[in-house]
Amino acid sequence: MCVPACHEQIVRSLSRRSFLKSASMVTAAGALAGCTGVNVTESPVSKTINYNRIVDLTHTLREDFPTYFGPSQLKIESLYSAAESGFNLNQWTINEHTGTHMDAPFHFDGSQTADTIPVSKLVGALAVIDIRARATENADAQVTPDDIKAWESVYGPLPAGAIVAMNSGWDAYVMDGTRFRNADDAGVMHFPGFHLEAIDYMMEEKDVVGIMSDTLSLDFGPSPDFAAHFQWLPSNRWGIESVANLSELPVSGATVMVGVPKIAGASGGPSRVLAFAL
Amino acid sequence: MCVPACHEQIVRSLSRRSFLKSASMVTAAGALAGCTGVNVTESPVSKTINYNRIVDLTHTLREDFPTYFGPSQLKIESLYSAAESGFNLNQWTINEHTGTHMDAPFHFDGSQTADTIPVSKLVGALAVIDIRARATENADAQVTPDDIKAWESVYGPLPAGAIVAMNSGWDAYVMDGTRFRNADDAGVMHFPGFHLEAIDYMMEEKDVVGIMSDTLSLDFGPSPDFAAHFQWLPSNRWGIESVANLSELPVSGATVMVGVPKIAGASGGPSRVLAFAL
Repeated sequence: MCVPACHEQIVRSLSRRSFLKSASMVTAAGALAGCTGVNVTESPVSKTINYNRIVDLTHTLREDFPTYFGPSQLKIESLYSAAESGFNLNQWTINEHTGTHMDAPFHFDGSQTADTIPVSKLVGALAVIDIRARATENADAQVTPDDIKAWESVYGPLPAGAIVAMNSGWDAYVMDGTRFRNADDAGVMHFPGFHLEAIDYMMEEKDVVGIMSDTLSLDFGPSPDFAAHFQWLPSNRWGIESVANLSELPVSGATVMVGVPKIAGASGGPSRVLAFAL
Repeated sequence: MCVPACHEQIVRSLSRRSFLKSASMVTAAGALAGCTGVNVTESPVSKTINYNRIVDLTHTLREDFPTYFGPSQLKIESLYSAAESGFNLNQWTINEHTGTHMDAPFHFDGSQTADTIPVSKLVGALAVIDIRARATENADAQVTPDDIKAWESVYGPLPAGAIVAMNSGWDAYVMDGTRFRNADDAGVMHFPGFHLEAIDYMMEEKDVVGIMSDTLSLDFGPSPDFAAHFQWLPSNRWGIESVANLSELPVSGATVMVGVPKIAGASGGPSRVLAFAL
């Protein structure tokens, strides 16, 4: 069990050694006296979430939910039914990257698997970057540094530990035939994503713990090289793909909580993502 | 898409018809103009969560995590590895009732599946009922109405929409050989749970949306009939089994968020359960 102040001890310890953003964080955590895991995180000052609305950023996941690779990635099998056994129970066979799901750093070989991301990084202030108008004109639209700077010019600098979401309006197409994948005759998909320069801006100049897209990828559809993935995830920051309902939220002021399953060694997982807002 | 005030409209509408707690809620939601789902819930007054600690109430789930039935209920298979493909990706074959997981009402034939529980019911004020001393003496200890009333005598009536958790200390045994299941020579398990009278008290006299146990069941181990399950779940209230780290929390004042996967028709699912506390 981890003592309440343990995570902050770890952060301070690592900070002193300039390891704050390094992949050795989890290992260092285990080495600290009294800690066998990072189950509790404590802030030096208290935080407040004011809300009167809870918005579900999660799509309902079905066997025919569209996938990046194309074929179904979920099979639901009934093991018991109330009619026969008195209770209902299913088994899922599921690819970790299906539906509204997390890309843990380990997906692109960061050291943190879904179960070892510090819980303090699963909760954060949300900045919604609205590129719906551009995405309507161009399915290959990307979030750029200028988009983020435009947000900051109105709402101030991205808050510490922020979560940045791209709202391209693509969630509306999720069960609309083939439109969510939007593949052309050559099989190349066309949907919005984060430009590598925006990734660099958030990594080099900001304190952003996670990003979210409302499409099938963090990268835009025609990306030949997963550039955004390869830059972002190995730094032990996370992503969420295929979020829903961002248009229900204010673009500033909401708080997000990411409920990713805590399965050992996971590269991600179908997650429940809720936002608290006024 | 559901308009912001939609859920409250539904609740008021159902309330007028005395259907507030009825199984027809989801159907009624769909029938209301402008609503195709319950993705947003709005309260008439704003709420506040003050916290400086986030406590992870979730065990890390591994293939050898103990199960109610005995055999493993999780298989993790690597489909891609960074060494070979540039990225890591696993597939899980998993029983919905494995690890720290939800029992959705539908598990015992309530109408609400995990994906249709209103999100407002996935967040609530936590009351921790501490029976650790009794459970140390008697593995078959149960939470009784007197335990809940003793909590109320100190902290006041259970708050509206409360989540009530049993802390028996059993989470410490989760990977301790066979101790979590604690089966005797006849195969009968012995661990704490909720007494039917406590279930009745919470249903008839209180406004409790969910209960959590730190053992393999809502019922105590030797239960021959799942009495607590059969009483609680069909009323469209939920349960979480095998929660962890309740001892890290104050017994009153924390707020819980249940991150259950939103998979269509699910009777439950491995969940990320976080608590916010001072």
